[in-house]
Amino acid sequence: MIRPDPHEGHSRRAVVLLSGGLDSATVLAVAKHEGYEPYALSFRYGQRHSVELTAARGIAETMGAAQHVTVAIDLRLFGGSALTADIDVPKNRSVDEMGGGIPITYVPARNTIFLSFALAWAEVLGASDIFIGVNALDYSGYPDCRPEYIAAYESMANLATKAGVEGTTSVRIHAPLMYMTKAQIIARGSELGVDYSPTTSCYDPSPDGLACAQCDSCLLRRKGFAESGVPDPTRYRAN
Amino acid sequence: MIRPDPHEGHSRRAVVLLSGGLDSATVLAVAKHEGYEPYALSFRYGQRHSVELTAARGIAETMGAAQHVTVAIDLRLFGGSALTADIDVPKNRSVDEMGGGIPITYVPARNTIFLSFALAWAEVLGASDIFIGVNALDYSGYPDCRPEYIAAYESMANLATKAGVEGTTSVRIHAPLMYMTKAQIIARGSELGVDYSPTTSCYDPSPDGLACAQCDSCLLRRKGFAESGVPDPTRYRAN
Repeated sequence: MIRPDPHEGHSRRAVVLLSGGLDSATVLAVAKHEGYEPYALSFRYGQRHSVELTAARGIAETMGAAQHVTVAIDLRLFGGSALTADIDVPKNRSVDEMGGGIPITYVPARNTIFLSFALAWAEVLGASDIFIGVNALDYSGYPDCRPEYIAAYESMANLATKAGVEGTTSVRIHAPLMYMTKAQIIARGSELGVDYSPTTSCYDPSPDGLACAQCDSCLLRRKGFAESGVPDPTRYRAN
Repeated sequence: MIRPDPHEGHSRRAVVLLSGGLDSATVLAVAKHEGYEPYALSFRYGQRHSVELTAARGIAETMGAAQHVTVAIDLRLFGGSALTADIDVPKNRSVDEMGGGIPITYVPARNTIFLSFALAWAEVLGASDIFIGVNALDYSGYPDCRPEYIAAYESMANLATKAGVEGTTSVRIHAPLMYMTKAQIIARGSELGVDYSPTTSCYDPSPDGLACAQCDSCLLRRKGFAESGVPDPTRYRAN
């Protein structure tokens, strides 16, 4: 079950946050390429659609994750975001508009919660590596996608766990896409053999999984494929 | 609904982590005493018993929390602790034995997960204060009860949220019990009018809520009451 580590001669497990989107599928490929045995972690967190969880399951299987766990948490208890509360998703914004302030699709403390579950699982697995597909360029409006946030999380994580007390290992939060454009992410993933057709990015897909082509996430994805030169396999609905 | 703040002349909401135990009931009283309007947050996290959640509900109501939310999360998916997996709780250990290393009742990354949900709720509430009943003296084996951990969490939280980006407010993690002995906690709570009879500390209570009197938590609680001079209202079962 455990893959040998080509770099250090022993197995290396890593927890990989997997949303079912383009970015995290790429991260899973990067983790495997770097010799880690990926344990994929997804969340059912009160999203208005389950398309991305279906995609995550398929991606984890196709790409050979050692295990895939979906944790159910209900962020709707707190409300406060278009992705979890009953607020309309903004459509057809320009990239400039997306850059202006924190978008309404921001989910309070979402990455902090996701990384915390990843940390718990990593500790149980004896893993010290966690991969997350955050990106400081395309989504600069999200506070919990910034490099200084990831660095602070890593410092905290090293004090939070047994390994931190015992000084045996250091937790590392890997954010390999941090400084890549969407086009670079797609190009890198394609190079590593990622099939992007099952991935989903749309904030407002139709029940049968067709992308809206108008939300921020669809617009960035479409632009990314166009710029990368990789054919866009996304199924968009007629609007 | 919002209580005026005696110190600054406007309302101050705070999220208070409430387990149903003695410590967090005291923290709730401290938060109120400091002029905060407490929003109590509990977790159903795969504990083997629900006694403490019943206690938490009663305490939140009696002590006048503005709201009480219980979030269900399933840490059993990951396993790894006597409190969530099928491992026996250690009994009748001396205080010296309790101090030797991280106890098996440690739940991986539990406080990190709890604080992350508190952070999400605080952001939705517009609150910047979070209270947690961790203690560095009586439970020194838990990595996520140490002051350096709490400080690191606070730094991370200030980079994780909208307020951190906009620089409008700072998140503060209050751990008012950090350097208090169990006896001092009980004395302080009694001074503030806390009724400890509905609180529960036992790791292995009977189905009707009687404490075992033998687990680490019962032993520390019993010793605390004895040293504080406050009568112990705990209902222990005959062993």
